This record gives sequence, structure tokens and C-alpha cells, in this order.
Amino acid sequence: MKIAKAVITVAGRRQRALPLQMLIDRDGVEKSVLSILLGEVVQAGIEAIGLVVRPGDEAAYAEVAGDHAGRLHFIQQAEPLGYGHAIHCARDFVEQDAFLHLVGDHLYISRDGQGCATRLVELARAEACTVCAVQATRESLLPYYGTIGGRRLPGRVDLYQVDTVVEKPTPTQAEQELIVSGLRAGHYLCFFGMHVLTPTVMEILAQQLAQAQESSQVTLSSALAQLARQEQVLALEQQESARYDLGVKYGLLMAQLALALSGRERDEVLSKLVELLVQRELSAGGRFQAHG
Amino acid sequence: MKIAKAVITVAGRRQRALPLQMLIDRDGVEKSVLSILLGEVVQAGIEAIGLVVRPGDEAAYAEVAGDHAGRLHFIQQAEPLGYGHAIHCARDFVEQDAFLHLVGDHLYISRDGQGCATRLVELARAEACTVCAVQATRESLLPYYGTIGGRRLPGRVDLYQVDTVVEKPTPTQAEQELIVSGLRAGHYLCFFGMHVLTPTVMEILAQQLAQAQESSQVTLSSALAQLARQEQVLALEQQESARYDLGVKYGLLMAQLALALSGRERDEVLSKLVELLVQRELSAGGRFQAHG
Repeated sequence: MKIAKAVITVAGRRQRALPLQMLIDRDGVEKSVLSILLGEVVQAGIEAIGLVVRPGDEAAYAEVAGDHAGRLHFIQQAEPLGYGHAIHCARDFVEQDAFLHLVGDHLYISRDGQGCATRLVELARAEACTVCAVQATRESLLPYYGTIGGRRLPGRVDLYQVDTVVEKPTPTQAEQELIVSGLRAGHYLCFFGMHVLTPTVMEILAQQLAQAQESSQVTLSSALAQLARQEQVLALEQQESARYDLGVKYGLLMAQLALALSGRERDEVLSKLVELLVQRELSAGGRFQAHG
Repeated sequence: MKIAKAVITVAGRRQRALPLQMLIDRDGVEKSVLSILLGEVVQAGIEAIGLVVRPGDEAAYAEVAGDHAGRLHFIQQAEPLGYGHAIHCARDFVEQDAFLHLVGDHLYISRDGQGCATRLVELARAEACTVCAVQATRESLLPYYGTIGGRRLPGRVDLYQVDTVVEKPTPTQAEQELIVSGLRAGHYLCFFGMHVLTPTVMEILAQQLAQAQESSQVTLSSALAQLARQEQVLALEQQESARYDLGVKYGLLMAQLALALSGRERDEVLSKLVELLVQRELSAGGRFQAHG
């Protein structure tokens, strides 16, 4: 299966500004979040990237896109009609091809430096089907993620057959429908924010958007739940990687720390961190008080 | 001495964008660096703030100024002619008043939550003279700071008579002219980035700018060295506070960490930090490798 296109959604109300944020990447170079994401995608062999944006935001993104700006195709989502709708805006860009999809408000950091997208795309090319990257996630975080139900494939430690997908399940629903054997107790396989999708997803999104009373009810989860009834859908557990949601409080801080601690300036940052903690926590000799 | 005005310089080539950066303040609220600085200044009783900007940047700063935007007066530095020139651009705003001066690319965090500017302004009001905030700083950091020579005032642990000021001294020059007795070996009193200045500084800057071959040779240090020969100049050691230079690599990261660790969400951030370190450093079970 050929995978040469990617779709990144950044049009969401609270996620629009995040791709513009500047961070210092693992190589010690200051880059925008968008530029880091494009690097991840290009490393995986992607040639063209459709960026689903709010109209008017194109110039700001183009300015910070860095080395791979030439691969960008801007796709407008004219109104904020939800996540499923945003992906569906890219249907003409995707055509009849499978494509990599990332959300633009996460960073993905692999421990081995190989790239999360590379691993996912290579597997999808080999298996020739939709593959969702997932991560074993504590029950308390279910309100934030699409979550899969399924079973581990024989002889594989990180690959699952997906039977169903539920967007932001309740703990009760998760316990009834989404327990996957072999995970730690109280953990579920939640979306990592990165998928390879077959073009059938676009057809399903079109049907669901036509039938839905509120377009916001149509999510990637609802489309994937339907897709799993029509085609093979796999889930790849990213055991050596972590996703960082930049939109939560202190999300940028933690993503920057994780980048720095997995990059070439790791020792320098660790020593700065220790110096800061010593300076603030110890040298005050107990005089330190937290004030609001 | 009445101190009701402040001058903040943000026009420098590499410092222009820093006041626009968003951070989460000690109170857990997301604010721009500029807004945090304005809060620091207003807490010290300042009524009007002159912001020395590059022409055209006014709107961007106004947008992120927050609660105290109404106190801002924009002062244009038409050309980037150096730090001394930038301060001198505020002469008509300052008139014949003493004023608080901050650089716009640092954050100041006090352990006791009282505010570094408040402490400095209160002392300057009482002593009715120029007071430079300083911090005992390792010799290796001399290339970054203006550094004072002087002597501790009798009966005070944190207050010094300033005899001279040298901008970015060499270690040899520092050892010959700037050793202050009572500090730890290898430490000097370097600028904290915050001063209360009498209007005489503006006269001295005007003279030095008129005589200098290169305007960049005129710095606040050169003006204060002259001022200390004409008037009393004191230095207040900020022992319970720290300055964070946002312009250095990982400066924003460390400033955000310091803010978070001294604020009301300290416990939450500490636990996120520990979780991140455990996740990255330990759960990989030694498989982790830093890659560039």
C-alpha cells in the first residue's frame, strides 16, 4: 500500500495557535511545533502534506513551516464543525490514496529516535490496511481520548485487531466493551493521535456527516468504529514513544522538557534542571514558601 | 523620593519577541511575559510605564499587555543603536523624575512572593538615590552582565555602596577592580536587570552618546560608572529572588519551571515533572538512548 500523503488538522478553536509555538527540538535547534511535526512526517516518507486550517491562518503557518514548507497544501475548514468534518475537508487532497493523519496539537517523541510516524507507516505499508497508533493509558484519562476495543494478534506484543472504537468512553462503558487482555489493570488502548487511514474513511465520514444532527457528533472514532465493521483495522501500540498534548495546562512545558531530555542537549538540560531545583528548593534553607 | 514611572526596554534585536511569549504565571493563569512584567511593576506602586519598542511593534505588545495595558506609553527607538540609547529614548517620558527600569527579556521571581521591584522601589524611596538590584553571580557568568565594585554598608547584609560599574568585565579586570568583600570566593555582584535611576542618568547618557564613536559603546553600566562619581549609588542584593534570562537557550523553559515551582500549582507541576522523568528515564529500563 502506497502512503505518500499526510493530513494534519490544526483548525480547532483551541489548537490553532499551538503549531506556531517555538520549541527547541531534539537536535538543539529552535523550531515551531509545525516544523517539528512536518519533520516527523517527512521522515516517514511522506511527500505531500494537507494542512486543514481556519481560513486566514495560512500565512502564519507558512512562515514557521521551516524546511518542508514546499510540501504543504492548505485546506480550508470554512466553519468549525468538528474533528470528523475537519478530516473530511481533505477528501479532494487525499483522493483514492491511503494517508497518514496527525493532530496538530500533539508532539510525538520516540525513545529510539526512529520516529513514531515512520514505524506506523512502515507497518501500514506491510499490512495494507488502516492502522491506529495507540498507547496504554490510565482509566482516569479516558475522557480525553478515542479508545479501542480488540484483541492482541497472536505472536505479536504490540499489534491488535480493532473490533470497535469509542470516543471518550465512560469508565463503565470502557469496562464493558473496551478491556483488552494483556494490558495492566485499569489501562486501555487510547489513541496516540496518529493514524494511517484508507480512503474508505472519507466515504464513511461523508455518510455520517450527512446523517448527523450535529456535525460535532462525527469524530474519527465514530468513522473508525464503522470502518472496523467493513475492513481490517489494526492498532499499533507505541511502547517506546510518548505523545504530549500541547493543549493542556503545562503541556508545552512538559513537551519541551521531554524533547530536551531525549535530545542531544540532554545532559545540559538535566544539569540546568537540577541547578534550578537546588537553587529554589534547597538553598532557601527552608525559607521558601509557595504564594499564589 | 517619588517613583511613579517605569521604563522597560524591549527593542533589542533578539529580545523583541520575548515579551510576547505566553507563560503560566504563579497564580496558574496564562499570561504574556509582558503582562507578568507589568504586574511586577504595578505591584511596586508604578503608575505609568514607558515601553521602548521598535517602531511597528506597538500593536503586538498592546494585544498581550493584559490588565495594565492602560498604563502603557509606547516610546519608539527608531534605530537599534544599543542599550544606553534605548533608555535615553525615554527621556521625555521620564522628565525630571526618578524611575524604575527593567529589561524586557528577563523574568524576576521572588521566593517570598513580595515582588523584586517592590523591595527595590521601597528601598530607593527611603534612600532617595539610584539603587541597582544585583545578585551574587559566578565568575563564569561575567560575560553576560554589568558588574559593580563597591563595599557593603555597615550593619547591612544586602546593601552596598557602588564605587564603579563595568559592563561585561574580563575575569582579570573583575579580580582587580570588582571584588566585594563578604561574598563567596569567585562571586561578583552582577546586575539583576532592575534599577531605580535618578534623572541624572539621562543627562549622562546624553553626554556619552554625543561623545561616543559607536552608540553601542554607551550602556547603562557606562552611565552608572559616571553617576557613581557624581551621586550616591547603592546596590541591593536580591538574596531571596532570582532573575531568569529568557533570551538564552532553554531560558523560557527554565523560567516557566521556576514560575510553576514557586506558584500555587507547585505540587501539580512537581508531580508532572517526576512522572515525566520516571516515564522517560526509568520505565525504558535502560533501553533509552539519546539521539540527535
